[in-house]
Amino acid sequence: MTTTPENLEPEIGEAEVARPDTPPAETEDLSAEEEAQTALLRDIVEAIDGGREARLRTLVESLHSADLADLIGLMDAHHRIALVEVLRADLDPEVLTELEGAALEQVIGVLEPGEIAEAVCKLEIDDAVDVLEELEASERQQVLEQVPGEERMAIEAGLAYPEDSAGRLMQRDLIAVPPFWSVGQTLEYLQKEDDLPNDFWEIFVVDPHYKPIGTMPLSWVMRATSEQKMSDLMTSEQTLIPVALDQEEVAYLFRQYNLVSAAVVDKSERLVGMITVDDIVDVIDEEAGEDILALAGVSEGDVNISVRSISRTRFGWLLLNLLTAIMASLVIAMFGASIEKLVALAVLMPIVASMGGNAATQTMTVAVRALATRELTAVNTFRVLGKELAVSIMNGTVLAIIMGVIAALWFSNQALGMVIAAAMVINMMVAGLSGILVPVALERLDIDPAVASTVFVTTITDIIGFLAFLGLAALFLI
Amino acid sequence: MTTTPENLEPEIGEAEVARPDTPPAETEDLSAEEEAQTALLRDIVEAIDGGREARLRTLVESLHSADLADLIGLMDAHHRIALVEVLRADLDPEVLTELEGAALEQVIGVLEPGEIAEAVCKLEIDDAVDVLEELEASERQQVLEQVPGEERMAIEAGLAYPEDSAGRLMQRDLIAVPPFWSVGQTLEYLQKEDDLPNDFWEIFVVDPHYKPIGTMPLSWVMRATSEQKMSDLMTSEQTLIPVALDQEEVAYLFRQYNLVSAAVVDKSERLVGMITVDDIVDVIDEEAGEDILALAGVSEGDVNISVRSISRTRFGWLLLNLLTAIMASLVIAMFGASIEKLVALAVLMPIVASMGGNAATQTMTVAVRALATRELTAVNTFRVLGKELAVSIMNGTVLAIIMGVIAALWFSNQALGMVIAAAMVINMMVAGLSGILVPVALERLDIDPAVASTVFVTTITDIIGFLAFLGLAALFLI
Repeated sequence: MTTTPENLEPEIGEAEVARPDTPPAETEDLSAEEEAQTALLRDIVEAIDGGREARLRTLVESLHSADLADLIGLMDAHHRIALVEVLRADLDPEVLTELEGAALEQVIGVLEPGEIAEAVCKLEIDDAVDVLEELEASERQQVLEQVPGEERMAIEAGLAYPEDSAGRLMQRDLIAVPPFWSVGQTLEYLQKEDDLPNDFWEIFVVDPHYKPIGTMPLSWVMRATSEQKMSDLMTSEQTLIPVALDQEEVAYLFRQYNLVSAAVVDKSERLVGMITVDDIVDVIDEEAGEDILALAGVSEGDVNISVRSISRTRFGWLLLNLLTAIMASLVIAMFGASIEKLVALAVLMPIVASMGGNAATQTMTVAVRALATRELTAVNTFRVLGKELAVSIMNGTVLAIIMGVIAALWFSNQALGMVIAAAMVINMMVAGLSGILVPVALERLDIDPAVASTVFVTTITDIIGFLAFLGLAALFLI
Repeated sequence: MTTTPENLEPEIGEAEVARPDTPPAETEDLSAEEEAQTALLRDIVEAIDGGREARLRTLVESLHSADLADLIGLMDAHHRIALVEVLRADLDPEVLTELEGAALEQVIGVLEPGEIAEAVCKLEIDDAVDVLEELEASERQQVLEQVPGEERMAIEAGLAYPEDSAGRLMQRDLIAVPPFWSVGQTLEYLQKEDDLPNDFWEIFVVDPHYKPIGTMPLSWVMRATSEQKMSDLMTSEQTLIPVALDQEEVAYLFRQYNLVSAAVVDKSERLVGMITVDDIVDVIDEEAGEDILALAGVSEGDVNISVRSISRTRFGWLLLNLLTAIMASLVIAMFGASIEKLVALAVLMPIVASMGGNAATQTMTVAVRALATRELTAVNTFRVLGKELAVSIMNGTVLAIIMGVIAALWFSNQALGMVIAAAMVINMMVAGLSGILVPVALERLDIDPAVASTVFVTTITDIIGFLAFLGLAALFLI
């Protein structure tokens, strides 16, 4: 059967009305995938332990660089180092770009500066920068000395941009043509020119000062006739990214305007590079991960870093929480006499604090997320605050009644039931308000709300919880 | 100055070594941006309130659909509805694809089925499906009845795929050519054919049964000569996405293999559609947001839903936490007599529980995140567990000594200091272990660890915290 556009068409038509298949049992698929990965990793580790180099190379060669990087990330440090010692220069340089944190450091640590230089030269500039920024300054210098002139200058220029800026993410190779060129001229240029990026998705049109004046996706060029002028085809609606923009902002622009690539411009608005969406996908993932971890007081989610580093990165948060817990204990200590008289207070008081903490965490997390996605701004803070207050009054009242009844029955003490109910309503209102106000205030003060909100908010609900419950008890029960 | 490739080159060279500018003061920029948005929103709201329709249309027309959608999301419901009542069919259909949750429901609620049908016809199929899945079944039927035959069938086919599957994300328009075509034939086909997607980034090569056998990015086609055969240009290394695959898995494949678009195949491996990265960027963002919210016990982060809905979505979690808090109180109640004798126990016991809870939350969050990014699998669970245990012993010991000394001095009771120190070490070890084991076990049981981990882990650390501290106190102090 020969396939021509004419008989391709009905095929498309048929595909369009095709009914979906039943979905595969996803969990089975997943664990099958994981099992295959585990089996492969076991084979590789066995080959390393047995010194079977040929077998090892065969196993590794068939893998996509991203999958090999995953396996290297999952290995223990000993085998990771042994594997790289065998492969050395034969390790696909792309693997370096897919590795992260401690695993990348260990792999690079095995290689000689000359080997790293060779690998880096095979990468696009943005990826090379990404790898080299992991090195210590002195080691990086050693590597760069062995990188040929032009690449070295480009890499050094990339490294000179601030960390996490658009300048670090961009590649310098791109296609830029003058507006008066025809499609035919552009295609001819593309076919003749050797020094072009591997993949590109749009063609930029620049003025004589190299300022971008328009752009067009490749699909437009392909559908145009050879005589059409670029200036007639291009759109001047184009998102330009300042080279110093933070990567989180860059990711926002890509997401907001559904970009696949975008032009990067310097302060004088000249085109200096291009960022492609594949790098942005990693940034979005990274930033989302940072927020999740920051809310829990963790600055580093890398499972491959050492016990010592993990301990150090988490200790500060725990110490801070110890201090706030002691503050809450000072509040309890104020009511020692009441507790001695009515031990039920000691039994019930953690409930009031804990419910406030949970309600506050809910509100705070929604607020932190909404701030990150820009769904919570100065415009609607007051409205959202009102809603959260209403929600905490509604939920707080219902839960307070439930707990009040339980407490009254448990300790055969109606007044105690009313005191705990009142304390819960108070604390959950405070929780709703502080869950919004703390992250919003931190954002205003230019402090990352994901990093600092939790400790403030839970301190507030602990202290108010103990104070409201024990204070009311001291007033009305003792 | 005329610009030719020859004098473009040095410009590129110059750009490559250009030093970066100092970064703009980012916060100022951001708040300027936010201020501009706030001012624009105020103008729009004033135009709505003043009934100045012409002014309103002028303000709205100049906006990018994504920015208008943001503003609509930030407005209160009253103005949101009023705006759509003015614009009606003139509302850019793309705005619907950028709106989310409650705001989208409200906007659609204003429009007549005929108006929605008209808007939906202007969208790509995947976006149309995205909008229509928000409607009630009966309303959706009313809309679909007014959509012309071919589009309706395509939309219905999309809606028939399971929610959150590749089938819902894909578009059906794509470029597929036979392998024996030349580049010239392909270009001619592209130029003549009208029914093509707006944007496409690769050309798929299919066999006579419409099974994908290769692909090439557009840039390859553009750099090839007109006589070259597609089969010689294409790469057969290609990521094929099963149509029933969950969107989280699809996002994983895009991230793992740096895809810009990918072919979607049905059960018999025929090409049925194409997914592009712009939709995946939204999925990644959405899934990351879901995990953050789920850890805090929130199933819905939409700031625009009603107070009633917010209360309902959060109540279950709070009730569950109330029950676990009562369980912890039962443990305290067992030691009522000890607390009556030594009220310092009531003062200090929340510290032990809270430190365990914080340490566990740190470990658990790292584990949940590492499970999501597949950096924690069956292969390295045991190793990671060992590390976490070591970390919790190290940090737990240091913090326990600090707290032991404070307690001993505060209550002039050395034995009390030793008891709280021992209880803290025990609870933080339990925290480290449960922080890993609970999420890993939930994942094995096919329960989303982000949703269920927190309540298990904090219940464990509360109960063990109170039990260890009060139990040791009862044994050694009373």
